[in-house]
Amino acid sequence: MILVSSNTLKSFNSFLKSRIEQQNSWLCVGLDMSPESLGSNKLKDLKNHTYKVIDSTRDFAIAYKPNFAFFERWGTKGFSWLEDTIDYIGFDYIKIADAKRGDIGNTAKQYAYSIFDHFGFECVTINPYMGQDSIIPFIENEQKGVFLLAKTSNDSSGYLQNINNNGVFVYERVVKMAKELNKNNNIGLVVGATVPEELRSIRELSPEMPFLIPGVGAQGGDLNLCMKFGNRNGVGLINISRGISFAGDMSSKSIKNAASKFLIQMQEAVK
Amino acid sequence: MILVSSNTLKSFNSFLKSRIEQQNSWLCVGLDMSPESLGSNKLKDLKNHTYKVIDSTRDFAIAYKPNFAFFERWGTKGFSWLEDTIDYIGFDYIKIADAKRGDIGNTAKQYAYSIFDHFGFECVTINPYMGQDSIIPFIENEQKGVFLLAKTSNDSSGYLQNINNNGVFVYERVVKMAKELNKNNNIGLVVGATVPEELRSIRELSPEMPFLIPGVGAQGGDLNLCMKFGNRNGVGLINISRGISFAGDMSSKSIKNAASKFLIQMQEAVK
Repeated sequence: MILVSSNTLKSFNSFLKSRIEQQNSWLCVGLDMSPESLGSNKLKDLKNHTYKVIDSTRDFAIAYKPNFAFFERWGTKGFSWLEDTIDYIGFDYIKIADAKRGDIGNTAKQYAYSIFDHFGFECVTINPYMGQDSIIPFIENEQKGVFLLAKTSNDSSGYLQNINNNGVFVYERVVKMAKELNKNNNIGLVVGATVPEELRSIRELSPEMPFLIPGVGAQGGDLNLCMKFGNRNGVGLINISRGISFAGDMSSKSIKNAASKFLIQMQEAVK
Repeated sequence: MILVSSNTLKSFNSFLKSRIEQQNSWLCVGLDMSPESLGSNKLKDLKNHTYKVIDSTRDFAIAYKPNFAFFERWGTKGFSWLEDTIDYIGFDYIKIADAKRGDIGNTAKQYAYSIFDHFGFECVTINPYMGQDSIIPFIENEQKGVFLLAKTSNDSSGYLQNINNNGVFVYERVVKMAKELNKNNNIGLVVGATVPEELRSIRELSPEMPFLIPGVGAQGGDLNLCMKFGNRNGVGLINISRGISFAGDMSSKSIKNAASKFLIQMQEAVK
């Protein structure tokens, strides 16, 4: 895969779209470095495995998504590992901070500084529960993007997200908010692979907005449906974490094979 | 103030209640160490000021609430500072992680380990948008508590939180979920001081549940109303951040005076 340099285009969303088109890939590799899955709770082993996953997937992925929880559980050492991981991924891939931030304006400003300026991520996942002023500090720089949680992939996601007011679900209201705030063309949506009906209806509501779709692989979401709905007009990044990082015997070969197989499925699905 | 030792009671909520009764204080000091407010962006100055705030308020506060954003913006160094801050606060105060976490179960488990086991906080703020399975890993240990965001203090909080389904607001649904999950008596609610009507109605819905109330001070919430509604039957911790940490000329004396004044107001309000 020919690597292209970092964002030189105007907005995050147009950068993402051109990157996907150039590389014919939708694969985001989630870095959820679980001691339980690796079978070791030594930080050194987890670090080495992270670098192995990155190197084994460079030919297939266009984005990496470190999940902050798995780094934070190690405290200072974990944050140092996160900094190293971002350096290791380098400038040729989109780095998504899976941090699910959401706080009042002056606090959100600090998180935006942390994620974009200190760590150097290109985009971040955001929890919409506190509304617009918790999102604005993250979208002021058009080259940096956010993915707002709309409809998540977990079992209990419907408890609040599917509350209905006059025929409009809470998650649809998030889509409306995202569209209204999207002046800089740098907002996308998180929509779970495990909820194909909502995926389709959210795509209808926001035909041009990028999706970040978790839930394929270990969580059981259907990749073909995700490509079909997620990718229609707009662009859909498909995140796979455990299904790649801990594939087979966890060797480079197994990880590479898993990534390659997922990418081929994606390419077939859009033909 | 006579300090009592750490949680030896059964549940977090009963521990909190007894601590408030013993010490006749509801004061939680928020540690939002903003370079802009301090007038210095040197980490050393921010660290020293944190310790000054803690030492100047030990006679008045029963809880401290470090806001993760202000630590995370410094990356590894910030997490090291957070670890030091928790040690510095010590075992005689309730330490609240203002981290607003919310993620799928296996990720939430890692965050719970991070906050309770690695850092040693007694409780954490949680975003409810993803529903029950994002909360359960945090409430399994009855001695550790969570404060679920119900109705927040910021301007745009109503956009999702006040969506109404058959007369029930989204934030009321969060209260319902909190009550249903509260088998271990270790769940409380975050309710903003800036929304007195909602504060009153949430207190009516959950007469025995602890509240964590931000928004007094810089955000303009009315302390007397917070004590009146927040504290009726249940217990209400009042968080003050900027109004104490950056009071007056930011000397120990000014910080102490501000904390003392807030505490006296709280004590007067419940007489």
